[in-house]
Amino acid sequence: MTSTRRMHLGAFMRPASIHTGAWRYPGAYPDANFNFVHLRDFARRLEAAKFDAFFMADHLAVLNMPTPALMRSHTVTSFEPFTLLSALAGATERIGLIATASTTFDAPYHVARRFASLDHLSGGRAGWNIVTTANPDAALNFGFDSQMDHDARYAHAREFYDVVTGLWDSFADDAFVRDVASGIYVDPEKMHVLNHKGPHLAVRGPLNIARPVQGWPVIVQAGSSESGRQFAAEHAEVIFAAEGSLEKGQRFYADIRARMRRIGRAPEGLKVLPAAFVVVGDSLADARRKRAHLDSLVHYDSGIGSLNAALDYDVSGFDPDGPLPEIPPTNASKSQRDRMVDLARAQNLTIRQLAERAGSYAGLAFVGTPQSIADEMAAWLDADACDGFNIMFPWLPGGLDDFVDRVVPELQRRGLFRTEYEGHTLREHLGLARPANRFFPAG
Amino acid sequence: MTSTRRMHLGAFMRPASIHTGAWRYPGAYPDANFNFVHLRDFARRLEAAKFDAFFMADHLAVLNMPTPALMRSHTVTSFEPFTLLSALAGATERIGLIATASTTFDAPYHVARRFASLDHLSGGRAGWNIVTTANPDAALNFGFDSQMDHDARYAHAREFYDVVTGLWDSFADDAFVRDVASGIYVDPEKMHVLNHKGPHLAVRGPLNIARPVQGWPVIVQAGSSESGRQFAAEHAEVIFAAEGSLEKGQRFYADIRARMRRIGRAPEGLKVLPAAFVVVGDSLADARRKRAHLDSLVHYDSGIGSLNAALDYDVSGFDPDGPLPEIPPTNASKSQRDRMVDLARAQNLTIRQLAERAGSYAGLAFVGTPQSIADEMAAWLDADACDGFNIMFPWLPGGLDDFVDRVVPELQRRGLFRTEYEGHTLREHLGLARPANRFFPAG
Repeated sequence: MTSTRRMHLGAFMRPASIHTGAWRYPGAYPDANFNFVHLRDFARRLEAAKFDAFFMADHLAVLNMPTPALMRSHTVTSFEPFTLLSALAGATERIGLIATASTTFDAPYHVARRFASLDHLSGGRAGWNIVTTANPDAALNFGFDSQMDHDARYAHAREFYDVVTGLWDSFADDAFVRDVASGIYVDPEKMHVLNHKGPHLAVRGPLNIARPVQGWPVIVQAGSSESGRQFAAEHAEVIFAAEGSLEKGQRFYADIRARMRRIGRAPEGLKVLPAAFVVVGDSLADARRKRAHLDSLVHYDSGIGSLNAALDYDVSGFDPDGPLPEIPPTNASKSQRDRMVDLARAQNLTIRQLAERAGSYAGLAFVGTPQSIADEMAAWLDADACDGFNIMFPWLPGGLDDFVDRVVPELQRRGLFRTEYEGHTLREHLGLARPANRFFPAG
Repeated sequence: MTSTRRMHLGAFMRPASIHTGAWRYPGAYPDANFNFVHLRDFARRLEAAKFDAFFMADHLAVLNMPTPALMRSHTVTSFEPFTLLSALAGATERIGLIATASTTFDAPYHVARRFASLDHLSGGRAGWNIVTTANPDAALNFGFDSQMDHDARYAHAREFYDVVTGLWDSFADDAFVRDVASGIYVDPEKMHVLNHKGPHLAVRGPLNIARPVQGWPVIVQAGSSESGRQFAAEHAEVIFAAEGSLEKGQRFYADIRARMRRIGRAPEGLKVLPAAFVVVGDSLADARRKRAHLDSLVHYDSGIGSLNAALDYDVSGFDPDGPLPEIPPTNASKSQRDRMVDLARAQNLTIRQLAERAGSYAGLAFVGTPQSIADEMAAWLDADACDGFNIMFPWLPGGLDDFVDRVVPELQRRGLFRTEYEGHTLREHLGLARPANRFFPAG
């Protein structure tokens, strides 16, 4: 391997891992969704391994599953991201903290303010994973009868993003003079009243908190649709990608880079970090055995529940041992649905087989030894298919320990990953510039 | 003093104290609004002194002040309560954490979820200060042209409270069985779908987090209007009262107790904790000198700004050395306005004199020696004017240190305040029962 680039690593976390069977794996913590001590421990282990960020997944509803799947799902309860990451900010020193927040079901003033506050509390370690919230059940929890359609959500998200970033720029970086002798606390010439009145939002401002330490928290985005890719190319600084193969990863990476070139945006400003599910073993056979054991802990009822959720379409009425029917386009997340449909077609899977994958993890997985996993990760980096990864651990804490104790040192030995943090902020970890203030370009 | 009751103590906090001149006091931290380390230090000192709670004041806008006042105000920037208190949860073990959240400008699903999460993260130490947000500037930050009127805000608040508490009861306390062997994580019979459809709100539920450790976080309320008092008598567990004299405190206390009796509510379920601004000195003269010095750090422009904000009426066009004009009723907080008007009438103050008080602190203040302050506090308790206090420190950290190092030991010596926490949750500190689940009374 001769990569000259280093990779960036985020940890994509749910309290008990994203795998449906994770909480049942030997040594896992079935109470991690309730016990902050475990989460603090995970974050500290990731920080010791010099991860760029702890990335908190989120939903705004109990996921709609039939009862037999629901009763087996540890996703039913979870800490809320702002509160969890703020608590972790107080328990860590350097690792980035990425929270998911919805542009559809929250107010831009709250979102701007909470991220600014998290950024100040953490010394510049906050990131905002912008989601438009595909889940129609979320709409019902926020006073709507149904979810906005996909394009309307993105139009709204663009305006929301403009307002939030405008609110972050309410004060010049040097606005707060705090001169005890004269009694002047803030220079009023360095405060901007946004006065935003757009098609979807009206927000006066200013924000009642100083500009974030990072200028703006890091902007993270995961959409894979046409609207999502274009939004990412224009505004994202990290893409949480979901391509399932190196070739698809390369095409996605090239597409994003081309979109950036077309609008004159420099490539350094955006890091593409695909999700990767990593199972480490002493041998390839050992790793596969671990994964098979983990997958065996997923009940069929859970698998079909996960599949229906991913497809946003109920296939439980079809023959489990027959092929996947045509899945109509829906209003839900396109990337998840396409991944399932592609997998079924590519490998000629029955509904039952596909449900087993859905209840496990159907996306990109590196299953092998520390060496083989490092080889695969390096190959993605060399092939310009990514700038690093968002690692999903198969169970917690064991799967996390396997990665940080065995894969990270192998990556470090090859010069592919840092051995010490060089900066203090998440922007510095990711090599991202601090954005200028749009209202006070000099400050 | 022969009180047999003990008092409860909350610390009513802004990062640089509630006093306009506090950040300029010798030894104060002018950067406390930016520096979490100071806030963590304050919380730990309060915990060492066995305070019941750290209570975070909040606003949803930069307060509307003319520029000369604005530029001198440290309130322009502050940490956001959920993020700050979550960070403090990770840095403390026992002290309660009370966050202010608005029923007018937030979604009940978010509010229920964030408090539940804070309660789980902190091991049962969360409290919700319910505010309806009188400040009309806040409305402009949330897409509204003007603020709802007072009674409409309270009607909305009642429905909001019903939804939030209903969402907290989404799961029975024993719903999460987490049986690794069978793979059953949650008992679906112990999950309740709220399906709320009311005049103001439509929220399906269930909440996607387990029932809070305390059942419900402690309900705190501060309204002094007719609607506010009645709401408090029905639902509050702590009242943040604002009566300026012992006699008024007694009348307020008796009124709340009478309202509780009329609806059959036991008095133990609600603690009345008036705000008290405390300045400690070696002698009465020393304490008065300290306060005078602190007040001298408030510029007249700040004073008139604070007065206008409290009155929700601009009096800067009137003769500063003339009397306060008639103040028309407005849509804003009644308690603040009445306190100012009463003070002006009672002491025959000019606008200038009243502005000096407004820019300082115009409410109940105990200024004296540790002994005289303990005497006054005990007198309130003995006279059934309160169950304790929400202490406002004149500056930070010095004013806080004076209280915890000198007044608290005096209260403890007299048996008026705990010397050790007996419980772990905020409810236990306050002697409040854990509420039954309305949908699962047995669980």
